[in-house]
Amino acid sequence: MKKHNFSAGPSILPRPVIEKTAAAVLDFNGIGLSVMEISHRGKDFQAVMDEAVALFREILDIPDGYEVLLLHGGASMNFLMIPYNLLQNKAAYLETGTWAKKAIKEAKKIGPVEVVGSSADKNFSYIPRNYEIPADADYFHITTNNTIFGTQIREDLNSPVPLVADMSSDFCSRPVDVSKYGIIYGGAQKNVGPAGVGFVIVRKDILGKVERDIPSMLDYRIHIENGSMFNTPPCLPVYTVMETLKWIRETGGLVKMEELNRAKAAMLYDAIDSSSMFAGTAEKDSRSVMNVCFVMQDKYKDLEADFLQFAQSKGMVGIKGHRSVGGFRASIYNALPAESVRALIDVMQEFEEQKA
Amino acid sequence: MKKHNFSAGPSILPRPVIEKTAAAVLDFNGIGLSVMEISHRGKDFQAVMDEAVALFREILDIPDGYEVLLLHGGASMNFLMIPYNLLQNKAAYLETGTWAKKAIKEAKKIGPVEVVGSSADKNFSYIPRNYEIPADADYFHITTNNTIFGTQIREDLNSPVPLVADMSSDFCSRPVDVSKYGIIYGGAQKNVGPAGVGFVIVRKDILGKVERDIPSMLDYRIHIENGSMFNTPPCLPVYTVMETLKWIRETGGLVKMEELNRAKAAMLYDAIDSSSMFAGTAEKDSRSVMNVCFVMQDKYKDLEADFLQFAQSKGMVGIKGHRSVGGFRASIYNALPAESVRALIDVMQEFEEQKA
Repeated sequence: MKKHNFSAGPSILPRPVIEKTAAAVLDFNGIGLSVMEISHRGKDFQAVMDEAVALFREILDIPDGYEVLLLHGGASMNFLMIPYNLLQNKAAYLETGTWAKKAIKEAKKIGPVEVVGSSADKNFSYIPRNYEIPADADYFHITTNNTIFGTQIREDLNSPVPLVADMSSDFCSRPVDVSKYGIIYGGAQKNVGPAGVGFVIVRKDILGKVERDIPSMLDYRIHIENGSMFNTPPCLPVYTVMETLKWIRETGGLVKMEELNRAKAAMLYDAIDSSSMFAGTAEKDSRSVMNVCFVMQDKYKDLEADFLQFAQSKGMVGIKGHRSVGGFRASIYNALPAESVRALIDVMQEFEEQKA
Repeated sequence: MKKHNFSAGPSILPRPVIEKTAAAVLDFNGIGLSVMEISHRGKDFQAVMDEAVALFREILDIPDGYEVLLLHGGASMNFLMIPYNLLQNKAAYLETGTWAKKAIKEAKKIGPVEVVGSSADKNFSYIPRNYEIPADADYFHITTNNTIFGTQIREDLNSPVPLVADMSSDFCSRPVDVSKYGIIYGGAQKNVGPAGVGFVIVRKDILGKVERDIPSMLDYRIHIENGSMFNTPPCLPVYTVMETLKWIRETGGLVKMEELNRAKAAMLYDAIDSSSMFAGTAEKDSRSVMNVCFVMQDKYKDLEADFLQFAQSKGMVGIKGHRSVGGFRASIYNALPAESVRALIDVMQEFEEQKA
């Protein structure tokens, strides 16, 4: 049976990327060795790192003055690295969900944090508006897409201080104006690769302004000086990131990704909104194009477990909602084909016809 | 032409491990999805993490009271995590090479460090002896194998304070008495897997004694509580670690690994010692069983580049010495067959016959 992979992350990867990774594991570029067993300092792997960085620059149209890093540790290590590198007086954070809370928690260990807006009052079902970003903050931190709650900041914000964005779960799903950000970072394991590597796009001139002595592995400047090879990089994940970026370029780049992603999201949200059994959990103007969260309407609540089982029996993978929201979550990242969204809608409609 | 892979790291992996990794990239356990695109919280990946940890416990005969972690960041992140978690009053370090120096540098950012012994006076060509470990140190840190300089501490030391060992490049090359260590850690990319994941074996009762507020990602206790999944783990590297550990077990475990490794090292050191052209760089009683460093004797110094080219033309990969030592380095980790060592010796002897 065909599987439709709606996993929230690690999540579906394009099939050609999977096949190229498997081939490089067996024999990298015909050199007779696996990509896993060659020196990261040799020309063969250096070319992979260089190409991955060049592809980020091309696909995202990254301006001069920005550096691209591929590092161990995923987004979570950056929750710590960001305040370590930037927080001198105080930092401003927007609290939009579980990951934002984690970022805030770590920053508070390093220095003063002002939470300028929060949607905790309604279980993070919306993106706060009408908050003020203090002009004396060292930076303003946002989580652009909230994987767990299915909300998203879908435009590039204006900020009077460097804007720092955890884009783990919507990076490369749409074009962004990189020049509006001080740092864009995240884990690769949604739209740009497998788990085990994180990306950081950083405007160099915001670094070097704090007084503390930063440990080497947490210092963005050291990783920049060493071209993401201060220590041995996660070579195989970096290879897969490179192949994923090639796939994005070949598929039409970020304009095309956005078009496809919006079409998939519209199709699924329309199906939810026109159903008399399902209901979306996020406020409409805050809905995520990446993670569609929905539940059973009150009178059908008892059927949630049944639906989950039914959907799984039809090949739907990873649609159980996070325990913080309940119900269901369909993650519809770049690599998920529209065909899978249609398959899910068919399953929802079939279930509704049977049970409603 | 057959390649003989003497790379220092990332380094040769057993062929069955490479093939199993490629297969799991294409279709993991027959579930129709790649090991790269499934949730780390699902039962399929949880089984991988659990088996990897169980294999470490079995192969190394790890006593109760110790935890096994598989984390992002390699050995270098632990250079920082160790003092963060353990350094309250002062730490003692043995300075045996480049990596020991890096560990010392990071620890000094956190607290007082006493370097109790060093072989810097002779370019780290020996393991210091007759040093004293201060009884009031929080821990004593060693680098068991010095990849760059080809020296090794080949026995389990007695220490009056918790012994912390960076075993990146000789871990699982011989049986160790884990009970003599407080922490054993390293990057996987020599004997136990690919780059992108580190291992930490930690005696739980040495944790929680420092006063500082440790950032979550640097706190061993948080990783223990979360079974190495405080954040998304590097899933594919962890998978390959699991397969490498299975291969070690199937090949006969660490007793067999040591037997094979000693035989390979003896063969190569004997060839060097009986040559009138080559010379080992490490003092004999400090020689590493993992990384064999050698140079041309003085009167043949000019031939080093020629030999390198000659050896490469015969399929030898990764034998250029690190710039700190010069000459050549053959890394002969677990997965390197004796056949490759014989091939290198043949090449050395052929060159010597031609040129001497």
